[in-house]
Amino acid sequence: MAEELLPSPHPLTPPRSEDDWVTWFRLLRSRRVGPTTFHRLISERGTAADALDALPEVARAAGVDRYAPCPVEVAQEELRLGRLAGAVPVAFGDAAYPALLAELPDAPPVLWCLGDISLLDRRLIALVGARNSSSLGTRMAKNLAEGLTAAGFAVVSGLARGVDTAAHLASLGGGTVAVQAGGVDVIYPAENAVLAQEIGERGLRVSEQPMGMQPQARHFPARNRIISGLAQAVVVVEAAAKSGSLITARSALDQGREVMAVPGHPFDGRAAGCNMLIRDGATLVRGAADVVEALTPVADTEPRPAKIPDAAPAPRRDPPHRPLAEIAALHGQILDRLGPSPVAEDQLIRDLKAPAGEIGAELVTLELEGRIERRPGGLLART
Amino acid sequence: MAEELLPSPHPLTPPRSEDDWVTWFRLLRSRRVGPTTFHRLISERGTAADALDALPEVARAAGVDRYAPCPVEVAQEELRLGRLAGAVPVAFGDAAYPALLAELPDAPPVLWCLGDISLLDRRLIALVGARNSSSLGTRMAKNLAEGLTAAGFAVVSGLARGVDTAAHLASLGGGTVAVQAGGVDVIYPAENAVLAQEIGERGLRVSEQPMGMQPQARHFPARNRIISGLAQAVVVVEAAAKSGSLITARSALDQGREVMAVPGHPFDGRAAGCNMLIRDGATLVRGAADVVEALTPVADTEPRPAKIPDAAPAPRRDPPHRPLAEIAALHGQILDRLGPSPVAEDQLIRDLKAPAGEIGAELVTLELEGRIERRPGGLLART
Repeated sequence: MAEELLPSPHPLTPPRSEDDWVTWFRLLRSRRVGPTTFHRLISERGTAADALDALPEVARAAGVDRYAPCPVEVAQEELRLGRLAGAVPVAFGDAAYPALLAELPDAPPVLWCLGDISLLDRRLIALVGARNSSSLGTRMAKNLAEGLTAAGFAVVSGLARGVDTAAHLASLGGGTVAVQAGGVDVIYPAENAVLAQEIGERGLRVSEQPMGMQPQARHFPARNRIISGLAQAVVVVEAAAKSGSLITARSALDQGREVMAVPGHPFDGRAAGCNMLIRDGATLVRGAADVVEALTPVADTEPRPAKIPDAAPAPRRDPPHRPLAEIAALHGQILDRLGPSPVAEDQLIRDLKAPAGEIGAELVTLELEGRIERRPGGLLART
Repeated sequence: MAEELLPSPHPLTPPRSEDDWVTWFRLLRSRRVGPTTFHRLISERGTAADALDALPEVARAAGVDRYAPCPVEVAQEELRLGRLAGAVPVAFGDAAYPALLAELPDAPPVLWCLGDISLLDRRLIALVGARNSSSLGTRMAKNLAEGLTAAGFAVVSGLARGVDTAAHLASLGGGTVAVQAGGVDVIYPAENAVLAQEIGERGLRVSEQPMGMQPQARHFPARNRIISGLAQAVVVVEAAAKSGSLITARSALDQGREVMAVPGHPFDGRAAGCNMLIRDGATLVRGAADVVEALTPVADTEPRPAKIPDAAPAPRRDPPHRPLAEIAALHGQILDRLGPSPVAEDQLIRDLKAPAGEIGAELVTLELEGRIERRPGGLLART
């Protein structure tokens, strides 16, 4: 049959032998191969080895000449350095690979793990928030981390200053996972060296980046998708109006994760992002109990009184804000219409048939998230 | 036909002559005649005079002997004292009577008004909150009052300490209405004497109570129903977990009013009530713009992008909290099943087929609101 001439999708087999590992790392670290491409190549070609063999040809077809895949020595060196640091690579498809993270279309093909790998099996809640957190924010992060670990959850955060640091410190004993933006052996910020050391001993540090990689701006949104990807829910503890934590919240929503936020007084600018999320439909969180409750399905076994017509329920108006789920849908529509070849922004807006102002705002968000880029002449492309 | 033997409902005609006024006030101030009974009696008997004549007979039928209606002299004295104080009585059915308030089943038959009666025609927003407000709460009340009056709304509040005082002060120039728990000529709390004087001159003071009435505990929930009854929306500016402002919010919801609340940090106990309301579905308010926006119907003229299946919207779980509208429905069900004759609480719970814990909580609320009372032996009755 004609269909047999097309490449059929292959299930991914995680590496078993040392050679497998070298091949995986060569494919993964080759130029222009990100997580999504990695999964697509293996699905199309069958194995990492076949995908690696096909790379120069795939590059040529995309107009890239003189393409050389990642050399064997580089992959071997990454494996050597990782093990030297005491880290273990966990591959997509492996039993130890976290199930929730595996659901992402851009799930990291390999996670370098340093510490207690069993934490990947725990139910994880992400605590994220401002680096310049207030004392209220820091105390709330501590409070939530203690309450959540007491309730049997483990905490995942980003090893940053402020909320992240407080969350990790308070969950060191009960289960803490730090997702790093750079290599798992590169501590950033430097002031968290002692905390990172402790997490490596009592908790778990993970990263998708190669050993020795210094964190760069583009690594942070990528790191944030792993934080929310590992978690059942993302709790924004404190966040200003335009902050990285809001980007994490949006990405969590794109991933179908529960988004929750701690409110604050509107006169406190550090609460603006959280209050905005709550107006847009995020669950208001006052403490760990609210998180646990929101994750517990409502038992519908008890009879509920039927509504009676003469007790007038209040007419509820939908808030005029675009709800988060709609924003996620709009992001999907925008990304679907963009590829590596640039498209004119006004054409995109016409195609989407949505108000230009709304699309414009979401384009900025996607740009900040590093998912699209602007080219000269009002052109947009997917990164 | 047999039906003609039954009293047919009569539309209410407001008093025109001085004699009419005396009759209205006699009926209104007679023992056991509250606002709801007042409306029912006039509907059944045709005029206030006929209702007044029928009172002793109605009382006898209810098992009350030796019933005497309010004497002529008492009604005349109330009218004399009101006018002496510079107040004007506005009767239900009068052109000046506020349209929203008239919708309540227990709308005050007469409002004593002192000041600028035209304010009753304005679009009113209720600002309510803690008497022992924080500086954040006081500033927010001021901020909201200024922003709302600038947007063309007038502010209604209760002349109490804290949030009420700040709201009135900031809306003196733009339109402020104070609803008093006691007589319109009785200033409570005494420290607000100067503010009350200014509101009488530049704004409006109203009360349903007789002149000279000292405010008593039961007057405050009754006053609160007028505050929310006059308003398009009730904004709770600051409220602890078990506070009168929450009772006002519930009563506002029973009246079909929009309920909004200003969030605060969960570590600030004075925000607990507001955060609870927001979790239960109240609109989160950060400033006057949020109030105005929530009251403006969403214009659906702009095309919205259709949802596409591959941009997975987050699965939104309903919060396990009982939404406010459901609580209002439950209140209606409970009140419908109760009358002046006591009913056993466990019988009520069986009849309602709802979990005992949930009904128990709402019974406490209704009791606090003064709408039901407990009798010895586990019996409940409507007040």
